[in-house]
Amino acid sequence: MAATPRQRVARDAKSMAKSQREISISEFFTKNRHLLGFDSPAKALLTTIKEAVDNSLDACEEAGIAPRLLVEIRPDRVTKLGLELESQSSGDTPKSGKGNGKTNGKGTGPGIKSEERFKIIIEDNGPGILAAQIPKIFGKLLYGSKFHSLKQSRGQQGIGISAAGMYGQLTTGQPVTVYSRTGTTEAAYRCQVILDLKKNEPTVLSGEETIWEKDHGTRIEITLTGSYKRGQHSVDNYLEQTAIANPHLHLTYKDPKGQTRIYANSTDSLPVEAKEIRPHPYGVELGILARMLKETKSRNLNSFMKDEFCKVGDKTAATIFENAGLPPRKNPKRLVRDDIQKLLDAIAVTKITSPPTDCLSPIGEELVMAGLRSGVEAEFYTSVTRPAAVYRGNPFQIEVGIAYGGKLPGDELAKVMRFANRVPLLYQASACAIHKAVLSSSWRNYGVQQSRGALPTAPMVILIHMASVWVPFTSESKEAVAHYPEIIKEMRLALQEAGRRLQRHIKRRAREKDALKKQSYIQKYIPHIGEALQEILSFDDGDKDEVIAVLTDTLERSRKL
Amino acid sequence: MAATPRQRVARDAKSMAKSQREISISEFFTKNRHLLGFDSPAKALLTTIKEAVDNSLDACEEAGIAPRLLVEIRPDRVTKLGLELESQSSGDTPKSGKGNGKTNGKGTGPGIKSEERFKIIIEDNGPGILAAQIPKIFGKLLYGSKFHSLKQSRGQQGIGISAAGMYGQLTTGQPVTVYSRTGTTEAAYRCQVILDLKKNEPTVLSGEETIWEKDHGTRIEITLTGSYKRGQHSVDNYLEQTAIANPHLHLTYKDPKGQTRIYANSTDSLPVEAKEIRPHPYGVELGILARMLKETKSRNLNSFMKDEFCKVGDKTAATIFENAGLPPRKNPKRLVRDDIQKLLDAIAVTKITSPPTDCLSPIGEELVMAGLRSGVEAEFYTSVTRPAAVYRGNPFQIEVGIAYGGKLPGDELAKVMRFANRVPLLYQASACAIHKAVLSSSWRNYGVQQSRGALPTAPMVILIHMASVWVPFTSESKEAVAHYPEIIKEMRLALQEAGRRLQRHIKRRAREKDALKKQSYIQKYIPHIGEALQEILSFDDGDKDEVIAVLTDTLERSRKL
Repeated sequence: MAATPRQRVARDAKSMAKSQREISISEFFTKNRHLLGFDSPAKALLTTIKEAVDNSLDACEEAGIAPRLLVEIRPDRVTKLGLELESQSSGDTPKSGKGNGKTNGKGTGPGIKSEERFKIIIEDNGPGILAAQIPKIFGKLLYGSKFHSLKQSRGQQGIGISAAGMYGQLTTGQPVTVYSRTGTTEAAYRCQVILDLKKNEPTVLSGEETIWEKDHGTRIEITLTGSYKRGQHSVDNYLEQTAIANPHLHLTYKDPKGQTRIYANSTDSLPVEAKEIRPHPYGVELGILARMLKETKSRNLNSFMKDEFCKVGDKTAATIFENAGLPPRKNPKRLVRDDIQKLLDAIAVTKITSPPTDCLSPIGEELVMAGLRSGVEAEFYTSVTRPAAVYRGNPFQIEVGIAYGGKLPGDELAKVMRFANRVPLLYQASACAIHKAVLSSSWRNYGVQQSRGALPTAPMVILIHMASVWVPFTSESKEAVAHYPEIIKEMRLALQEAGRRLQRHIKRRAREKDALKKQSYIQKYIPHIGEALQEILSFDDGDKDEVIAVLTDTLERSRKL
Repeated sequence: MAATPRQRVARDAKSMAKSQREISISEFFTKNRHLLGFDSPAKALLTTIKEAVDNSLDACEEAGIAPRLLVEIRPDRVTKLGLELESQSSGDTPKSGKGNGKTNGKGTGPGIKSEERFKIIIEDNGPGILAAQIPKIFGKLLYGSKFHSLKQSRGQQGIGISAAGMYGQLTTGQPVTVYSRTGTTEAAYRCQVILDLKKNEPTVLSGEETIWEKDHGTRIEITLTGSYKRGQHSVDNYLEQTAIANPHLHLTYKDPKGQTRIYANSTDSLPVEAKEIRPHPYGVELGILARMLKETKSRNLNSFMKDEFCKVGDKTAATIFENAGLPPRKNPKRLVRDDIQKLLDAIAVTKITSPPTDCLSPIGEELVMAGLRSGVEAEFYTSVTRPAAVYRGNPFQIEVGIAYGGKLPGDELAKVMRFANRVPLLYQASACAIHKAVLSSSWRNYGVQQSRGALPTAPMVILIHMASVWVPFTSESKEAVAHYPEIIKEMRLALQEAGRRLQRHIKRRAREKDALKKQSYIQKYIPHIGEALQEILSFDDGDKDEVIAVLTDTLERSRKL
């Protein structure tokens, strides 16, 4: 069928040139929304809540406020025609794959059964947002404060919440509604924004002062078509895990069935604030260095290296320039490409101290344990926070928690909870460095069953948290951590340490069981020993009972050891 | 450690607003280059070649030219300092994860051993590119001709080749060099472009007429740091599979070791040209429909529906308007949100013919077989091209080829070759719908071993090709097809058909083996039968020999049946 050309319209370069066009970032992500985590109605619901919660927590922590959040999923009215349609289409559903996009659960009309309309509400007690900033934050992709800074935060790209708004707008036509108040002396502000899909610019539908009972905070309302489901990938699971990894968070969650759950904070202290750092010279590459040299305000190379990078002092700078054969007083803007290459080569051979680690804010061993205890009923808990390490110039830190035994099911694969900068990761487990680190650890060494290439089989929950100024996700939807060898190595080291502790517990448990068995065995014979002694040594019954009592007591005490 | 706040710098909304900034798409992808397939030096090399080859093949086919391509990977000079560095760092390599980005194979300086500099050259005999278009095509992300059209092509987004150029620029500082000639009456043109990372705009370093021996075509040179490896994810494998799926392609490949391989075309006919189609109403959603209504040149709803969508004639349009309760003569720009919702609901309940399928250009059963035969030595080949189907309004078509037995290893998992619009997919197999379709087929039914949850174990190569106007990839690096149920269903149907044929072959093989066994058994006794007959019927030796000859002959003939 493909062998003979049919109606070939030969086009030349000129006619092809006519169809070349610029594509806006919002057009791009409209068509590629799966890149942002909006590829199914269930995932869209989760992603929207995740992005809003991330932002709320980041803002609260940055402002030094103990976060109190409300998350609500409210079923939204269905249009009348939509309801009629529901019943009509059920009798006459065209077959899947035969010319109808309706049945795939990815379309959007109200005629589709697997999805409904929801109003998502996320409210925080954070610092609020200035009225002038609201349109761009919620109505423009790639706008934000975190992209250009090297600092541990949940958000990274300035794309998530505006993408959620865009998804709502695409599927229901509804704008994002934002309430914000920046303090008791300021009036609250209410704003409705939509995103111009062609220009990637916000359009403000309404914006006015309003009455709001909160002293300060932000409330977001997004209406979208989504699908509310339970299970591993659910909003419920995400919020539960968020509470585990953020013990300072007080969260109220109203699900679409109208049930309210409260996750109270288990600590009153906020996490240590992560500091922003400058890039480390080892992480820079030629193109970036060239751009930094072009844009710097420094007048000479020496101050450029010291001002733009961390851990470069006069001495280190001098060594670099010596290795590069470049004069320290040279104007950075005058470096040609060969000079830049020399500078980069010189950086690579110069010994430079590791980047600072106060830019990281791990959960901490104690709170990892507390979180696990609150969420998982087990008999043994342990946690390990590794010292900070570095991948590609970016500091990061790994934490591991293990809960074992108790009410956990023993004949299933261990459950792995993955976190990046305190955000639970629910999708794409098998693509994640965390998963790989757990898989590639030798659990048998620690007395835990494991089939080749599989997760360990044990009554066990494994929590792994990666804190970093820049978490390398495998996709923009931030679902899995990329396989950097340094990161996997740190995870394995943390798992080894936790594994060894688990092994001690399992061995102790085995010994106890063994001892208990021996004890019950001995216990059984103590009366006979008493009787034998009575016979041999002609004890009276009192002596016999005393001997039995003493022996039993000795046994009891040895058991306690 | 995390429990007590330390140096908390409480920030309010105002101070936070100051750090809000716009992020350009080139800044975004510089930091997130792994989204585009540039996450490791080996993958960067492959992705660069893949993007350039995709573009060359698309352009040749669109212009009706049988493609002749040259792909060359030429080792590039290493700077002097880099060489010194090589030997120096080998003796004194800082430990991984201890403050040095050098050892992770993801950095870029010449001090890193796992990667080298290469000049990648891709030259085609296509229609060439107008001089005025070159800067934007190679020096601006999100610029292209294919994003806005619904047509089967290898490229989709207008992002791949400029991203490859950007990667080269980032790692080596070198511009992209482009030669192009649009015909014998035009002069050839040579142009050097870099991408302004902050603005996402091209900067032309040089551009002038030049002498080039080609009548028409394009030649691209990109210098980058990469890593050349063999194996499953290699450029070699990619090019080999590209030749299989594109039997009309003549490819010359010079690898970095200086070896030249030629993949000659196995057919002279170009594939049937895929037509561009308008969107199908079933695939549209509210936000997109609203935008189309706003931008249309149609003066009334009736012509809007007929002009902007495929498969909507007067009758279908009338039914839609009746269902929606909207007047056909209404101005499309006057529809309010509720009207748009009504229109959308009405589309969902109206029966509309499936989209046309001449927008698809499958390889064809014959050429799939020819491709497999040329690339895989087996004893049995079969192929199935399914009729076109639809997901979310997008037509698509599945093809399956199976090669079995012969020199293929019998005790290994079957090898799966994945193709989307004739492009081989090498990464992220387990995330791909193709992989899932193979896994979830019941191979045991066809006489092939399969462990639970695993690929079949057999001397087998399975080729699956998805042709579509829009292949739904799971990521921008186009490595895996998203799990749309309609797509997986079609793949499974094709696999079933091919599997049944394979089963017949395997059964016949088993029967033959069985017959052969019986035959050799009978053969063994024929002389004895001859002797027995001689004894009973008093044959002479001549009679005996004749009987033996006749029996042997009969046996021979029965074997041939």
